Amino acid sequence: MAYKTLQFQLPGQSYPVYVGSALLKQAELFERHVQGKQILIVTQKKVADFYLKDLLSALSAYRVTVALLPEGESHKNLKTWRKLMDQLVLEGHDRSTTLLALGGGLTGDVAGFAAACYQRGVNYIQIPTTLIAQVDSALGGKTGINHSAGKNLIGAFHHPSCVIVDIATLKTLPKRERSAGLAEVIKYGLIRDPVFFSWLENNLSVLMQGQEESLLHAVSTCVGIKAELVALDEREQSGLRSLLNFGHTLGHALEALFHYRVFRHGEAVALGMNMAARLSRERGWLPEKDEQRIQALLAASTLPLKIRRKIDIEKLFSYLLRDKKRKDNRLKWVLLQGIGQAVLTDQVSREDFMKVIPALL
Amino acid sequence: MAYKTLQFQLPGQSYPVYVGSALLKQAELFERHVQGKQILIVTQKKVADFYLKDLLSALSAYRVTVALLPEGESHKNLKTWRKLMDQLVLEGHDRSTTLLALGGGLTGDVAGFAAACYQRGVNYIQIPTTLIAQVDSALGGKTGINHSAGKNLIGAFHHPSCVIVDIATLKTLPKRERSAGLAEVIKYGLIRDPVFFSWLENNLSVLMQGQEESLLHAVSTCVGIKAELVALDEREQSGLRSLLNFGHTLGHALEALFHYRVFRHGEAVALGMNMAARLSRERGWLPEKDEQRIQALLAASTLPLKIRRKIDIEKLFSYLLRDKKRKDNRLKWVLLQGIGQAVLTDQVSREDFMKVIPALL
Repeated sequence: MAYKTLQFQLPGQSYPVYVGSALLKQAELFERHVQGKQILIVTQKKVADFYLKDLLSALSAYRVTVALLPEGESHKNLKTWRKLMDQLVLEGHDRSTTLLALGGGLTGDVAGFAAACYQRGVNYIQIPTTLIAQVDSALGGKTGINHSAGKNLIGAFHHPSCVIVDIATLKTLPKRERSAGLAEVIKYGLIRDPVFFSWLENNLSVLMQGQEESLLHAVSTCVGIKAELVALDEREQSGLRSLLNFGHTLGHALEALFHYRVFRHGEAVALGMNMAARLSRERGWLPEKDEQRIQALLAASTLPLKIRRKIDIEKLFSYLLRDKKRKDNRLKWVLLQGIGQAVLTDQVSREDFMKVIPALL
Repeated sequence: MAYKTLQFQLPGQSYPVYVGSALLKQAELFERHVQGKQILIVTQKKVADFYLKDLLSALSAYRVTVALLPEGESHKNLKTWRKLMDQLVLEGHDRSTTLLALGGGLTGDVAGFAAACYQRGVNYIQIPTTLIAQVDSALGGKTGINHSAGKNLIGAFHHPSCVIVDIATLKTLPKRERSAGLAEVIKYGLIRDPVFFSWLENNLSVLMQGQEESLLHAVSTCVGIKAELVALDEREQSGLRSLLNFGHTLGHALEALFHYRVFRHGEAVALGMNMAARLSRERGWLPEKDEQRIQALLAASTLPLKIRRKIDIEKLFSYLLRDKKRKDNRLKWVLLQGIGQAVLTDQVSREDFMKVIPALL
């Protein structure tokens, strides 16, 4: 089948993201990006049940073994990563080996971090099968695991040799996962592309029904925006890549506060985007009608607008202070100066936060 | 005090190595290479007893904490690394923090790997205080820890912002450590610089007495050769950087076989160089008199020429097969076609190995 090819351009490295349907079965894509003879597929049982057979048939030319990761963000930890490292050692993988990360964000992040550290870095390919991984976590070379004190505190930048985005895999995605993915899709419109945001308002229902054409448009638009921002600022130095963290300052803190067990990542990001929109309106940057459009689209995507759980606000604030974007004890927030226009600021005070948080409870 | 500056040139990155005496006290060097306000000094008790006071006085402008690592290569493991990560998290280090690795190879490798993985990579400075670290392990961006199945199987390429080589620290180095360091010094002559090898033959005794001028010459010559090879082939793709592994194929296997408890790294490398010299002579590449010169210089440096311990040769060979330089099950060896002329080959068979090993027992 035909597919779109989008390119990630980095200093000294460039790699393609293939976006299409039924790409898992295309042996030719793997031949192009696997150098050695060994492959370790890293995946999870549920994903393997659906897709492992197709993938193995495309990999008949290689010696392939499989690692099954446990389910749930609470397992995105040192123990899961260490087991992968042990398997690579025990199976005798050499430096020319390739890891295939088949699954969602957890799989891609942990497998990518294993590839980053095994023998100081081996080849890997991202094959994201959730919406959130296809539009965000599998793109851009960030790999890592969580520390009990915060998300992704341990990790590395390590880019895959390619990303294979097979939107056919979204058919088997549970509804809650698809909604969580939509949070990141909406994010791209909000930070960078008002036309795409309007398109989402008009096409949300077909998108939620899984219509292939609309999924292809949405996913490849998101990939394109991410590729642009990562190319401009791979290591988050100019602040441009940091715009992708819109909604994530609060989102990460909420996930950590509930030990990654209550909110899906996208749900926490939706809450964070709602808060960021309110902070933006409070300082007169965002018109009230735009805030309402944002809330309407989040709600239509069946994403939460309120936390609706008992929380210790002081504790939540202490989790915010552990954010990686903090520098010399000032928090960095991404706010909006309009739909499609995000800015990075360190001007959100503890008071601002405390004023707005009740609206989210 | 004056110092020499040698430059490591890499694609997209360049950093200086300062070689001189009493550099630890020069606040100005740190001001140049520390960006944030926080510093974590990673060191060991014995080294701290000698040098921490001087270093702290040069760092009075920063918030400084200290991590003490346990002694011994057997602690170059996941547990030691994880403790460092925990300390960074608990002390609230942000992305602008700097790690200072003050000590030998273990300290530099583990601290470097912690810097590589904390928040996907933070700044660090190498301050090697052993001869072996000054001429080898602190240079070139290789960081990592051992796996029970092999040395440095887990790690990353992560370059420091500078390397501060203070040869005054060698005065407190135990004699056995200095000899072990000489193995790597001799290696540079053997693989790349016959004039330096002759200089070593003529100056070994003053060098072993710790005469400052001869140490400066020896260390900066080694740094220069390593900088040249790393610049030409950072990721060991062309084979040029791999020449630095002369003596290391057997060396790493011997260290692992004895659980890093019997031979110092340099001693194992000396045994490996002796074996590689013999393999080179066996195939007619190295004249017998050159092999004798090599053995004489190793012996004069009080380095071992024989293993002199009961070993299971089959088990030793199985450890060789875990070498990172292996590709598609062929071992890579660095051999000599003369003093100063190393070549990488995959033409050493199991038979060749078995024929030569008895001479080392």
